[in-house]
Amino acid sequence: MASQWVDVRDLKFILHEVFKMDEQLLGKGPFADYDGETVDMVIDSAAKLAENEIAPTYPDEVHGKSIDAIFKDGKVFAPEAYHRLWKLYCEGGWMTTSDSPDWGGQGFPSIVAASASSMFLGCNQAFLMYPGLTHGAAKLIEKFCSDELKNIYLPKMFSGEWGGTMCLTEPGAGSDLNVLKTTAKRNPDGTFSIKGTKCFISSGDHDLVSNIIHPVLARIEGDPPGTKGISIFLVPKYLVKPDGSLGEFNDVVTGGIEHKMGIHGNATCTLNFGDNGKCIGYLMGQEREGMKVMFHMMNEERQGVGMMGVSLATSAYLHALSYAKERLQGNNLFTGQRYVPIIQHPDVRRMLLKQKSISEGLKVLCLFCYWAMDQQLVAENDAEKDKWAGMVEMLTPIVKSYCTEMGLVVNDLAVQCYGGYGYCREYPVEQMMRDQKINTIFEGTNGIQAMDLLGRKMGMNEGKYFMALMTGGNAHIAEAKGIDNLKAEAAVVETAINAILQTATDFAGMLGTNPFVPLIAACDFLNCVGDTLCGWFHLWMALEATKGVAKAASDSEKAFYTGKIESAKFFINRTTILVPVKCDILKKDETSCVRIPDEGFAV
Amino acid sequence: MASQWVDVRDLKFILHEVFKMDEQLLGKGPFADYDGETVDMVIDSAAKLAENEIAPTYPDEVHGKSIDAIFKDGKVFAPEAYHRLWKLYCEGGWMTTSDSPDWGGQGFPSIVAASASSMFLGCNQAFLMYPGLTHGAAKLIEKFCSDELKNIYLPKMFSGEWGGTMCLTEPGAGSDLNVLKTTAKRNPDGTFSIKGTKCFISSGDHDLVSNIIHPVLARIEGDPPGTKGISIFLVPKYLVKPDGSLGEFNDVVTGGIEHKMGIHGNATCTLNFGDNGKCIGYLMGQEREGMKVMFHMMNEERQGVGMMGVSLATSAYLHALSYAKERLQGNNLFTGQRYVPIIQHPDVRRMLLKQKSISEGLKVLCLFCYWAMDQQLVAENDAEKDKWAGMVEMLTPIVKSYCTEMGLVVNDLAVQCYGGYGYCREYPVEQMMRDQKINTIFEGTNGIQAMDLLGRKMGMNEGKYFMALMTGGNAHIAEAKGIDNLKAEAAVVETAINAILQTATDFAGMLGTNPFVPLIAACDFLNCVGDTLCGWFHLWMALEATKGVAKAASDSEKAFYTGKIESAKFFINRTTILVPVKCDILKKDETSCVRIPDEGFAV
Repeated sequence: MASQWVDVRDLKFILHEVFKMDEQLLGKGPFADYDGETVDMVIDSAAKLAENEIAPTYPDEVHGKSIDAIFKDGKVFAPEAYHRLWKLYCEGGWMTTSDSPDWGGQGFPSIVAASASSMFLGCNQAFLMYPGLTHGAAKLIEKFCSDELKNIYLPKMFSGEWGGTMCLTEPGAGSDLNVLKTTAKRNPDGTFSIKGTKCFISSGDHDLVSNIIHPVLARIEGDPPGTKGISIFLVPKYLVKPDGSLGEFNDVVTGGIEHKMGIHGNATCTLNFGDNGKCIGYLMGQEREGMKVMFHMMNEERQGVGMMGVSLATSAYLHALSYAKERLQGNNLFTGQRYVPIIQHPDVRRMLLKQKSISEGLKVLCLFCYWAMDQQLVAENDAEKDKWAGMVEMLTPIVKSYCTEMGLVVNDLAVQCYGGYGYCREYPVEQMMRDQKINTIFEGTNGIQAMDLLGRKMGMNEGKYFMALMTGGNAHIAEAKGIDNLKAEAAVVETAINAILQTATDFAGMLGTNPFVPLIAACDFLNCVGDTLCGWFHLWMALEATKGVAKAASDSEKAFYTGKIESAKFFINRTTILVPVKCDILKKDETSCVRIPDEGFAV
Repeated sequence: MASQWVDVRDLKFILHEVFKMDEQLLGKGPFADYDGETVDMVIDSAAKLAENEIAPTYPDEVHGKSIDAIFKDGKVFAPEAYHRLWKLYCEGGWMTTSDSPDWGGQGFPSIVAASASSMFLGCNQAFLMYPGLTHGAAKLIEKFCSDELKNIYLPKMFSGEWGGTMCLTEPGAGSDLNVLKTTAKRNPDGTFSIKGTKCFISSGDHDLVSNIIHPVLARIEGDPPGTKGISIFLVPKYLVKPDGSLGEFNDVVTGGIEHKMGIHGNATCTLNFGDNGKCIGYLMGQEREGMKVMFHMMNEERQGVGMMGVSLATSAYLHALSYAKERLQGNNLFTGQRYVPIIQHPDVRRMLLKQKSISEGLKVLCLFCYWAMDQQLVAENDAEKDKWAGMVEMLTPIVKSYCTEMGLVVNDLAVQCYGGYGYCREYPVEQMMRDQKINTIFEGTNGIQAMDLLGRKMGMNEGKYFMALMTGGNAHIAEAKGIDNLKAEAAVVETAINAILQTATDFAGMLGTNPFVPLIAACDFLNCVGDTLCGWFHLWMALEATKGVAKAASDSEKAFYTGKIESAKFFINRTTILVPVKCDILKKDETSCVRIPDEGFAV
């Protein structure tokens, strides 16, 4: 039974019935020893941790008292309740669900780790950002550091003894790393002396761990300006002795933390590296390849932020649903019954189904990206492997941007379902909305993602990757056309796909001649792609649900599958259906925002 | 020059060039003695108060310290800075800009008071809700109380010596007042003893005034259940002696205040009336006509909430614009210039023009409602008067709902323009977004407004009022068709209007046969009406701006008018244009959210 926090049934439906992981992933390649039953045990166990342990730590205010990360006397303290949770989380092995057994990981497919994470994130994103960044930094070390460094750092980070971050942003260099000012000076022993200030560093400092490992972008003295001159360094808060024990303080000083709209439990730090000339860094990867190296972590984080978007949307929806079933207000307009649960009111049902259909579509979109990563690992040939690698490239900006943009729509509606109570801190939905807003901004704003998709990703491999993604559902469309109850929806999805492909071609042509039109359209176009992909995923779910209804063993199961079908119809017939006309509008030469003089915005 | 808080030029454009108030309102009827110059003095003076005095009180957190209304030892304290501001506001006569000189008011048209308010609200909505509710309660007394009560209460309230509220909501009766539990027991002296609990009472208790006057909905013993049995009572916090001095405490006890997502400076109170059996109320209007009486105040507050939506959107946009002109980041994609203000990036321009075009459209929508009130007062015959009265009826739910819904879109985009900084409390845009969210909820959720429009308002006077509103722009459309630069936009607006009228007719037919379709569509349909009306208003503005460009005396004036035209094109060609296809979708028998079983939402 779904709670206010997690919906296990839906996750299992996606894993087993939609993706059919038991046949198409488990038992193959590196997953030879894993089966569906074991996966379900992981999911059930994650659901318990999420609901019983993580969710109680969620509120950022209790009885009018703030529960935030605190900066005091130069030190950062995570909320008190996070300490026990950090221990539970790390000891439970949740940091390394899908990592290599060589490093103590459990070796599950990444889609399993992502499914577990989706439940954790819905219960407290601010907390999860501590292990999340630790994991990302550790993976960077695993891929780009020497065995010597790996042997020291990885076990400590994967076990949660030490934490990690990602240090890109500087006060003057956010989305634009060209002007990055942090420097690295060569030392005779091959290390570098780092100097510079980084800001907006999530989980940048805290007391959950004894050491924090910072991958830091910096420019080696003499290297060229621009992003091509950037290298990346491993910079620990405390130096590490060869035996792994902690040495001297490495001159990484926390300047302060941000007071934010949400994610209060996570410390967003300004970090000063080397103010006293004593900050040592170790090169990761090759010199001047900092951007390339960092993007390995950045992509993981972008996919993770998309998952945050879905997760906060899902738990907000589940809360709104639960409230709507309990809250009595008004009369049933049709039966005349008085003082009924508000779920009986048509407009509340509309808001609920909108939340359900968006969040379930996003869930598959996100998980499909992890699915693609796993499929690379079990691919039978290079062409297959390349196809799935291309999928991940295409999906990353879409997942990051669309899931957070639409996630916020869900969070807003969830508050609306509660009415005035939703605006009060007594209920978690207002906090979920505040927390969600950061997801549209960090790890590259959604505008940056849209430019990445349009300007870089769509053209990769002569557009074949994008084409492969957009036509990935052709078989589902063909199948749905044969089912009376779904043929209209299949046609809508097919028309949307064609509109997207045509628009992509048109935009590619315009980039050389009339670039403003596609550039201005980029964000809206990315959302149209999302509306289309989620239309496909809904159709796919509806197909499996149609089979599910036929074989459902209980009323509850029948209701579940019926719910999936109605959810698909709602999404496709209200959202995907608008894609072709929206694309037409985006292609028009409506460049008012270019023509308008800067002074014309307001005088 | 527009600041980050107010845009005086745009307001004057709307008043003088769009509405042409100098010819069509001033000098007529009750406004015989007023001219445009005097109005501009009021506007300029309001802008100064807003920017110099109100805006500095806005932040609800300074240096990490909350600045909220506080509940301590049974008493409520408004933020310290509000005390001086309250005095300035009341002494400046801003409570009564458009009220009768008989009661000390200045007698300006209500559109002038609303224009001033729009600037105040953009600088601190939480503060403005104290005088706003005081004014609303005073107007109710003016209309429904005896001269004896009026003589005592009105001067004290209009001068700000006493405050006022609106007490409808109870813990179990929010949107549904049928189940209201507060009781009124007849006393031999004609007064009533009030007993009950009200919650979510904005400005419900505070220390800015010496007495607070509560209009309270309650049921007189023996009166029938449902809304038809509800009466309304004037209930002061302290009883008042015949000479106007304060008497005994009237047993109105504050139970607590809410901790909220935003509007922290306003005390949202739970009030317990008559817990000790000593709470006296005075009947306002007739017995069992409480709902009718209350709606006089409710309508004023709904229009005011719409204005709140516009105002927070406008100041957020102005902030984002100012930031985008200052913040350096990235290269100009076309000139290649490095490290340029972000306003040069196409996607930032798109976000800015979207904010501008929405907030300027909403501003005219809101002000048009006040314009209609003023036109009633100068109407030359009953038919004219009736037409304008009908306009106000139609516009009230649209203004409340559409301006807050779209206002939130603007606030979200404003945060996005700031990137990570926008999420930090150091900049006001995150607070504006939090403050804005309440506007979609209180004074009747936007769902309630949509039902009001669809189920009650559209059918009034056999649909003629709605028709009059939707065809109000026909002359502008005809004029714009004759201008090359606007004829395409005129066609878009015309097509949207026709789609709305056709859909209204279709829905009216369905209400008897297939009511779910229009009921589920209500909110989206209201938004389509808003998209269409704002399309008309943008066309109207573009027409006047076209004349303006031709006669512009300076580059700045030319830029202003050009900006208005581009703003109109952006809104009409990106938003209004979608109305016909959205209406088609809403009319389809897509009732998945009715068919889905309750258990199907999640099992």
